[in-house]
Amino acid sequence: MGAGLAIGACARGERRYECGMKIARMTVCLGGFAALLLATATSAQSAAEQAQSDNDPAWSITEDLTTEIGPRMAGTEAEAAARRWAIARLTAMGFVNVREEQFDMPVWVRGAEKAWLTSPYRLQKLAITALGNSASTGPKGMERDIAYFESFDDLVLAPDAEVEGKIVFVDNQMEPSQDGSSYGYYGRGRFTGPNIAAKKGAAAIVIRSIGTDDHRNPHTGVTTFEPGVKPIPAGAISNPDADQLVRQGKRAQSFSSPTPLRMKLILTPQNLGTKQSGNVIAEVPGSDPAATPVIIACHLDSWDLGTGAIDDAAGCGIITAAAKHVTSAGQPRRTIRILWAGAEEVGVFGGKAYFDAHGKEKHAVALESDFGADRVWRVDFKLPDSATSLANRIAAAVMPFGVVRGRQPANGGADIGALVQAGVPAIDLAQDGTRYFDIHHTPDDTLDKIEPVQLRQNVTVWAATLAILANSSDDELP
Amino acid sequence: MGAGLAIGACARGERRYECGMKIARMTVCLGGFAALLLATATSAQSAAEQAQSDNDPAWSITEDLTTEIGPRMAGTEAEAAARRWAIARLTAMGFVNVREEQFDMPVWVRGAEKAWLTSPYRLQKLAITALGNSASTGPKGMERDIAYFESFDDLVLAPDAEVEGKIVFVDNQMEPSQDGSSYGYYGRGRFTGPNIAAKKGAAAIVIRSIGTDDHRNPHTGVTTFEPGVKPIPAGAISNPDADQLVRQGKRAQSFSSPTPLRMKLILTPQNLGTKQSGNVIAEVPGSDPAATPVIIACHLDSWDLGTGAIDDAAGCGIITAAAKHVTSAGQPRRTIRILWAGAEEVGVFGGKAYFDAHGKEKHAVALESDFGADRVWRVDFKLPDSATSLANRIAAAVMPFGVVRGRQPANGGADIGALVQAGVPAIDLAQDGTRYFDIHHTPDDTLDKIEPVQLRQNVTVWAATLAILANSSDDELP
Repeated sequence: MGAGLAIGACARGERRYECGMKIARMTVCLGGFAALLLATATSAQSAAEQAQSDNDPAWSITEDLTTEIGPRMAGTEAEAAARRWAIARLTAMGFVNVREEQFDMPVWVRGAEKAWLTSPYRLQKLAITALGNSASTGPKGMERDIAYFESFDDLVLAPDAEVEGKIVFVDNQMEPSQDGSSYGYYGRGRFTGPNIAAKKGAAAIVIRSIGTDDHRNPHTGVTTFEPGVKPIPAGAISNPDADQLVRQGKRAQSFSSPTPLRMKLILTPQNLGTKQSGNVIAEVPGSDPAATPVIIACHLDSWDLGTGAIDDAAGCGIITAAAKHVTSAGQPRRTIRILWAGAEEVGVFGGKAYFDAHGKEKHAVALESDFGADRVWRVDFKLPDSATSLANRIAAAVMPFGVVRGRQPANGGADIGALVQAGVPAIDLAQDGTRYFDIHHTPDDTLDKIEPVQLRQNVTVWAATLAILANSSDDELP
Repeated sequence: MGAGLAIGACARGERRYECGMKIARMTVCLGGFAALLLATATSAQSAAEQAQSDNDPAWSITEDLTTEIGPRMAGTEAEAAARRWAIARLTAMGFVNVREEQFDMPVWVRGAEKAWLTSPYRLQKLAITALGNSASTGPKGMERDIAYFESFDDLVLAPDAEVEGKIVFVDNQMEPSQDGSSYGYYGRGRFTGPNIAAKKGAAAIVIRSIGTDDHRNPHTGVTTFEPGVKPIPAGAISNPDADQLVRQGKRAQSFSSPTPLRMKLILTPQNLGTKQSGNVIAEVPGSDPAATPVIIACHLDSWDLGTGAIDDAAGCGIITAAAKHVTSAGQPRRTIRILWAGAEEVGVFGGKAYFDAHGKEKHAVALESDFGADRVWRVDFKLPDSATSLANRIAAAVMPFGVVRGRQPANGGADIGALVQAGVPAIDLAQDGTRYFDIHHTPDDTLDKIEPVQLRQNVTVWAATLAILANSSDDELP
């Protein structure tokens, strides 16, 4: 409700943070009104009211983590510093059983990143970044003809001869979607494009960023090579750079003797071998020690280019603030376990480690926040039949905040994925992803991109949901 | 008229270029309607109709120059390539007396650009770029405490002791304005901030970018040191980086023992000495050889970070398309002289060279387009008393396209500045600058930022104005 209004109130050209702060002040009264509409369990109402007060741990967690630690790449000293920070903060907030659970993982770090076309047009630098798990070109780089593919499927269908020894370019232009579903379709260019190009004998691959913006900040992200496939250098260029390359390619093809584009590519990432990462866990103890816990998750690591504000400091802020508000409204019956997972971005190592350590314990239900800080617009359930009334109560509690009930089963989320696959019930509080991929995995993932009023709506919806879940009966969620 | 409607039609998240193309198609009919409203001289009407046809040299000049040449820094081989390109294009379009007029200038080029804070928080890279005429730190860089100033005026008032041996940071946050007037006020941080810091004994200066966006692309631009003042290294960081530095500084001040921020700064630009640049000039010959010419200007050089689409390929596209449309509507009485000036960005060397070569010739009136590609919203005049009716006719001709008449005298523009100062009459077709400084002097100055419908409105307004000027009598403009 407030969110649409609020966004409209941002003046053109007004910088996002300031505008958000103005709106946050403006909508305190709107939030209070919405809380009155909450005709549900007292605990949910009380938790939601808490979430709309001036006491805003979601913002402070997001601001402090991104300011004091900043980028926190998995397996690096920065991520370790973030864990120390997290333990101190969660302890200071009054959570209990605050601890680090360490695990080992392979660490990949970025090196030099440069690219430019050498023919037929004069040198123009491309804004490029390496994809996680990219091989190195070596410091002298490589210069090769470009093999152009308009789509991911065109690359899949291409005979090896079109690709061998070349730098593959995949011009796969992502469209935005509210539910983020376009990430699955277009994301294939990054997830598996490099593996396919490597198997066909490409020297390297450069993709159009998996992103929906028009800024010269390329989008990184992990790519995966199958066992037995030798990794090749793999990078992403920004949308404006990809547009330029396409225009130049069309001109080169229209020359009287058509000329392939040629690219010089320098990417020098390194594999540092096995290093230590870890999950940070904290709890709100339930009043009934026999009741199965509710687990809520986010991830603490971030890509190295930005400060990881929307991905995923905000998620940690949202779930933790919600747990705090639920606690302030009264001790819940079930224990709430908060998981700030390590090493999500580079392969969900934290989620796997949690499952290895705790997968045999019972969990009542699992939820994750890892899709930015824009408002929750839909709730999806994957619950046992015994929880029909529970789902109805939650849907009714979040409806006044503009959240509709979806028809698809909940997915869970990366860090709770193994739990959900093993049968743990799940609920998705789905966030609006329309602008998420403008910023995702770029240097632009910084605090100013978060609108306080939308962040607060998230906390409100999470607090209302979590209060109901944490006080649900064993008949509903065994 | 169409512009406001058109911008509103862009969906959130829709990439700008595509949206613009959709709107361009949608508003062909609106443009036709507006042309019917043009109750002025036939030649103006005809020229304006031409400008709204599918024949759009403004777009093709902008697209081709930014695609085939790209960045074209003053005094470099890229700018020379742009001149060769310009001569070929202007000749192919049927202009006459197409020529290059060379001049010498001092050339400055960018080197390595890195900065990060070393204390009290762990390493976080800053998005930084050097300002034109910055000195070099040397390849090893320097590490110094930061002297923080909230505003330019605070720096001016600071005693030398606060600044000596430090890296000055000026946190001077630009606000957008439709008429661009905020550039003058906030721009002082860049124009003269480094000179002031150098005189007070600073080791270097870093400023918050003179820009209104929230992307991690810093804004470059020229700075000037007074004769006798030894240049210091001078850079700009992006707005999100400046926000982060401010947050970190506040925390560092609140420590039990307040700690200054410390910065490591590496900027290695070079002065290459005197090199050759040049102006490109083309003409539409008037039917009356005795009549004084109309001069219209843009600049061909660009900063090196982007492809110089809004600054100023679009300006060259707009003025040249307008001249072409006027010619297509019938030979004008006065000669129209087109000046694509060289080396504007780094010190208006082309404008000065034109004045040195042609300042003693008579010019009827001078106009320049160098403020992006968003719509013209205001017309200002600085004309002799004899031209009262002429100004009225122009104001009436452009009014149907949403252009209001201003109350201020026209300024002219950088490249015609010396002419106007020497008394040549001027007209400003002032463009909407609300979002200009989101992009200005950044890597983001690329073709996709131009909305075709707004570019076309510029050409229409220019064609209507130019047709009236080029056919004006000697009684009006001697």
